[in-house]
Amino acid sequence: MAAVRNGPKTEGKRAGDIDGPTNPMVTPLLTDLYQFTMAYAYWKAGKHNERAVFDLYFRKNPFGGEYTVFAGLEECIKLVANFRFTEDEISFIRKSLPPSCEVGFYDYLRGIDCSDMEIHAISEGFVVFPKIPLMRVEGPVAVVQLLETPLANLINYASLVATNAARHRFVAGKDKLLLEFGLRRAQGPDGGIGASKYCYMGGFDATSNVAAGKLFGIPLRGTHSHAFVSSFMSPDEIIEKSLKRRDGSNVCEDFVSLVQTWLSKLKWSHISGGIFGETNQSELAAFISYALAFPENFLALVDTYDVMRSGIPNFCAVALALNDLGYKAVGIRLDSGDLAYLSSESRKFFRAIEKEFKVRDFGKAGITASNDLNEETLDALNKQGHEVDAFGIGTHLVTCYAQPALGVVFKLVEINNQPRIKLSEDVSKVSIPCKKRSFRLYGKEGYPLVDIMTGENEPPPKVGERILCRHPFNESKRAYVVPQRVEELMKCFWPGKSGKNREELPPIKLIRERCIEQLGQMRPDHMRRLNPTPYKVSVSAKLYDFIHFLWLNEAPVGELQ
Amino acid sequence: MAAVRNGPKTEGKRAGDIDGPTNPMVTPLLTDLYQFTMAYAYWKAGKHNERAVFDLYFRKNPFGGEYTVFAGLEECIKLVANFRFTEDEISFIRKSLPPSCEVGFYDYLRGIDCSDMEIHAISEGFVVFPKIPLMRVEGPVAVVQLLETPLANLINYASLVATNAARHRFVAGKDKLLLEFGLRRAQGPDGGIGASKYCYMGGFDATSNVAAGKLFGIPLRGTHSHAFVSSFMSPDEIIEKSLKRRDGSNVCEDFVSLVQTWLSKLKWSHISGGIFGETNQSELAAFISYALAFPENFLALVDTYDVMRSGIPNFCAVALALNDLGYKAVGIRLDSGDLAYLSSESRKFFRAIEKEFKVRDFGKAGITASNDLNEETLDALNKQGHEVDAFGIGTHLVTCYAQPALGVVFKLVEINNQPRIKLSEDVSKVSIPCKKRSFRLYGKEGYPLVDIMTGENEPPPKVGERILCRHPFNESKRAYVVPQRVEELMKCFWPGKSGKNREELPPIKLIRERCIEQLGQMRPDHMRRLNPTPYKVSVSAKLYDFIHFLWLNEAPVGELQ
Repeated sequence: MAAVRNGPKTEGKRAGDIDGPTNPMVTPLLTDLYQFTMAYAYWKAGKHNERAVFDLYFRKNPFGGEYTVFAGLEECIKLVANFRFTEDEISFIRKSLPPSCEVGFYDYLRGIDCSDMEIHAISEGFVVFPKIPLMRVEGPVAVVQLLETPLANLINYASLVATNAARHRFVAGKDKLLLEFGLRRAQGPDGGIGASKYCYMGGFDATSNVAAGKLFGIPLRGTHSHAFVSSFMSPDEIIEKSLKRRDGSNVCEDFVSLVQTWLSKLKWSHISGGIFGETNQSELAAFISYALAFPENFLALVDTYDVMRSGIPNFCAVALALNDLGYKAVGIRLDSGDLAYLSSESRKFFRAIEKEFKVRDFGKAGITASNDLNEETLDALNKQGHEVDAFGIGTHLVTCYAQPALGVVFKLVEINNQPRIKLSEDVSKVSIPCKKRSFRLYGKEGYPLVDIMTGENEPPPKVGERILCRHPFNESKRAYVVPQRVEELMKCFWPGKSGKNREELPPIKLIRERCIEQLGQMRPDHMRRLNPTPYKVSVSAKLYDFIHFLWLNEAPVGELQ
Repeated sequence: MAAVRNGPKTEGKRAGDIDGPTNPMVTPLLTDLYQFTMAYAYWKAGKHNERAVFDLYFRKNPFGGEYTVFAGLEECIKLVANFRFTEDEISFIRKSLPPSCEVGFYDYLRGIDCSDMEIHAISEGFVVFPKIPLMRVEGPVAVVQLLETPLANLINYASLVATNAARHRFVAGKDKLLLEFGLRRAQGPDGGIGASKYCYMGGFDATSNVAAGKLFGIPLRGTHSHAFVSSFMSPDEIIEKSLKRRDGSNVCEDFVSLVQTWLSKLKWSHISGGIFGETNQSELAAFISYALAFPENFLALVDTYDVMRSGIPNFCAVALALNDLGYKAVGIRLDSGDLAYLSSESRKFFRAIEKEFKVRDFGKAGITASNDLNEETLDALNKQGHEVDAFGIGTHLVTCYAQPALGVVFKLVEINNQPRIKLSEDVSKVSIPCKKRSFRLYGKEGYPLVDIMTGENEPPPKVGERILCRHPFNESKRAYVVPQRVEELMKCFWPGKSGKNREELPPIKLIRERCIEQLGQMRPDHMRRLNPTPYKVSVSAKLYDFIHFLWLNEAPVGELQ
């Protein structure tokens, strides 16, 4: 059986059919100056059209983990599909290069696009591993080099933050609602927009970022802040006090009094346990006003003054009044303090109310928690036990606080059909030469066992046939595998001129589903937070031999003195 | 003498005269959904036009330091000046809010702009400290709230990365050339563009980012990569070998042979010390090609194969051949290995050549170092001794690896002339109420001594007059100061409707100079990397009393059980 290739194809779509990158600042100038100096030197040497193959990959999984989520591909293809210099850009490049550069070069730049290029890549949302090319870019060396910086930029953060989101989801558990709240702390405006997009892709449920909601169709969430609470003084300032019953049958003329009656009932009932006297009146006014504006969506931030002595009783009084009129409050948000304790105490209080006042499901009111959450705090909450239903996560998620960069690199592996290797005293930095294919081999239990790279023209691994998988640099690490399923990892997302057989760019919702599915099929020991087992990455025996032949050939022989 | 107010003013400029934000994705939708739900609730309660004052500030200096550089103001003012919703945006907001929201609210949104708002801020590039407002935003509460998220987003990363740049400059020393090389590892496209802008502001000299060079006029730097080196096979492939003498007097027909002659001389001279035999021929070909393309700007990356056995001799042979034709090579770049050792060895080799072959200034050839540099590695290089003239810094600089987020917050301090306070069990999170002014008081030696906040209507501190400066929350911390100079910190950058007396937004070069000057005037113990002395931040005696009166008034009294 041949290698499995999934997914729809788009026959004969032209480059022009693909929109430009989401951020209009992503232009062919979003690159390093040295890509232009090199382009000029290639052009001057008559080498600019030599056919080069570059691999884009990373060397180490982020966050101390053993997996990475691949993201950012769609934006790369959008850049490639629309890659042309404007006259304005060309005249800026001309000003930036030495005046001795020949004008013919700028005519050359004027004619450049990516029609003579081929890009194979792993599908966005796939779980990926170090050293295996995420993308293989083939084309005229000068043009491929110009793409190095923007491709790395578009993949680096996207994959990092999608992985971070997947890791947060893993710790929080499948049944929790995860909300990305990071825009204000993100690294710049599209650090924020990118975070929202790729956190959703990595398994979050919604974002607070309205612009991202509009751009990508991500569900939006949000209610109110502390400032909203402290902007009110007391319920006396509420002028319009009426609220229609949910079924429209009649109108409660004084919702404020209804709330106050409930507050008083709560205060004197045994469930209060004497924990509260006067609740904060500015908070009460804010909750009532919010409920009057959003009777169907009442969710209150309860920690502006004191959660148990003010926020919770005020919330419950408003929620009970809403209940009288046929509305069901959504719940509360906690944004400070001991979230395990406060969520458990709040839940107890809600359940006591359900019992005491016979309000069905009141005990199940939603509890959202926020405040500097990360993998560690989620894990600690799980260990302590908590009653939180939804987590709002910002700073640590979007800035990837635990590791703010992924080291994606872009290495020349072949030029003019000659394989090239980049040596380094640090073995982990030696590049794997040749134009390659790569395959994921699955075992009997359905788990992926190993990824293997082969030379382009080697016969691909076959289902049921034993194959030797070798560590690319460690002679002694090798294993035979009989794959139960073989999946070719890279597909053609940019076939160049013809535009034929181009893999389609799926909508973000599909990528998200694929990502969740991919994460779910991994063997659990690769996924755990502490001491995860490394997933195996290998080369074929033939490629192994070739790497080491080339290495010896290129490395100078030392002389000890 | 009254408080000093510096800087030019722009009389009568209208809002429309200010361009929009650099990134077109910065629109009024770049905010959290809850700003819209709150706006609706304010509107529904008839409170939306209540006059509110919000302070934007941070609570802790980043990177374990005791200072921060304020950046991002210009982009904020550009957003504010152009703040209007499009019909398309309004219809998206409408889809995002519950269908029960009244249509009148969308008419209200249609009419919103920032003409009824006033923004005072510290000037961009100033050294700033925790708790002191960076910005005071005053206006209709609903509109000010909508601005919270984008203002925080635009200030947070900008100030963080400018501070990071200033810290790298501090360790590298004033005489080194600092180059920002971070685009490929930045958090998204304008994470990269923002990094370039604000690193330059914080004291870097140049960037590799061409788009940022075009947008902000930042000097550009860059030469070639490892891929350029390995894309060549051998000097045999060089077809066009001629190079004109610098003075135009004649042409060297075979520059390749000239280089090879020099390489052979080097190899057999005593200065080689037998350390090299055959140098790498693909590297040699790449260097020659680069020199033929840029004879005036020859800078070679020398670590693709082996620095001392291949890169340095190859570079020197090309540089000596260039020298024969009247050109002066710029130098080398090291991108791996022991930078202290390799830069010193390279320098020795250059000096030996200068002496042996009487090539004037050859010993001074520039040495640029890159490869995962940060404050620590720069400090370690200084301690070991090195010969590096320029540092190219990427990942750690632009992603602010050591601390990837600054906690800028936006707190309501007054509404309808009523002061408001946000309480917290964590004292450092209690906000300082009231519409305030703030002043920097300078001592006899010209150093800033303390920043002090006062109520808006208090008489400002005066030169030569003793004033009590109190810690806002710690009763026992207070000090008398007799200022030698008083500088009011906030100026009006957005006067609202009239547009009169608006502080001008200076060009980035001026902000950069101001920043360098500001950093230079700080007392050295505040600036040092290890255990710096905290700079004092205080409130007037009157404001202190008022904060604590309000605090007691708002906080619920506990009951121990």
